[in-house]
Amino acid sequence: MNVARILKDKGRSVITLTPDVTVRQVVETLAGERIGALVVCDADRRVAGIISERDIVRILAANGAAVLDQPVSHYMTKEVRTCTERDTVDWLMEEMTAHRFRHLPVVEGGRLIGIVSIGDVVKQRIAAAELEAASMREYIATG
Amino acid sequence: MNVARILKDKGRSVITLTPDVTVRQVVETLAGERIGALVVCDADRRVAGIISERDIVRILAANGAAVLDQPVSHYMTKEVRTCTERDTVDWLMEEMTAHRFRHLPVVEGGRLIGIVSIGDVVKQRIAAAELEAASMREYIATG
Repeated sequence: MNVARILKDKGRSVITLTPDVTVRQVVETLAGERIGALVVCDADRRVAGIISERDIVRILAANGAAVLDQPVSHYMTKEVRTCTERDTVDWLMEEMTAHRFRHLPVVEGGRLIGIVSIGDVVKQRIAAAELEAASMREYIATG
Repeated sequence: MNVARILKDKGRSVITLTPDVTVRQVVETLAGERIGALVVCDADRRVAGIISERDIVRILAANGAAVLDQPVSHYMTKEVRTCTERDTVDWLMEEMTAHRFRHLPVVEGGRLIGIVSIGDVVKQRIAAAELEAASMREYIATG
């Protein structure tokens, strides 16, 4: 089970913003699209950063409401971990658990082609474990 | 596998605030404690509401920075779904997926005794499915 399979189920559209938009625009987009994180890309669709709901709460706590008028580039995470279509669900789960983040942009040839969330990973992992258990139950019943 | 078992692993301490605190205090507590949601309780430790990181982003988008100075009671979710120690992990997962929330306060005798997150539920569910698969692999290998 790998990232290509997850993208096949959920699609490859990703909502992105450019580094110059304000934190207020990020907040409005997160709320309007009902998503937990936004990837910030340059004009060539290369990943420049990522910012999550959790980041918004953290920077508001640290800096107050003035952050809303500042560009997202000041506050986004710039060292973005990414994955490729060939990475496995098990690897994603370890990566997300070890580094405590919930979203991994999928990059091929330097360009953003999708995003995978912890929810997507969990859904696949549970499905795989339950499928294995069911096929073994059948094997035991008919063996 | 039930809620009592999850609380045995993660403990029963829950960070709560009172309904009169400001949204700014909520933001600071969420960030300081590195948690995703806060339960709002009255003096008797009865659940009065719940507010999450996602709620903060949503109310900021709808109302602007002025919300930070207003009491959390204006913005918290007041119809709080809760669970008890006897509820199963499968039931929690269905409840969380169906209603799209990530935290369920645990209530006994009308009082808050813990909180369960989607992360806790997922961890238990994956562990249970993997345990079943492993025990069947052993059964098949030795059978």
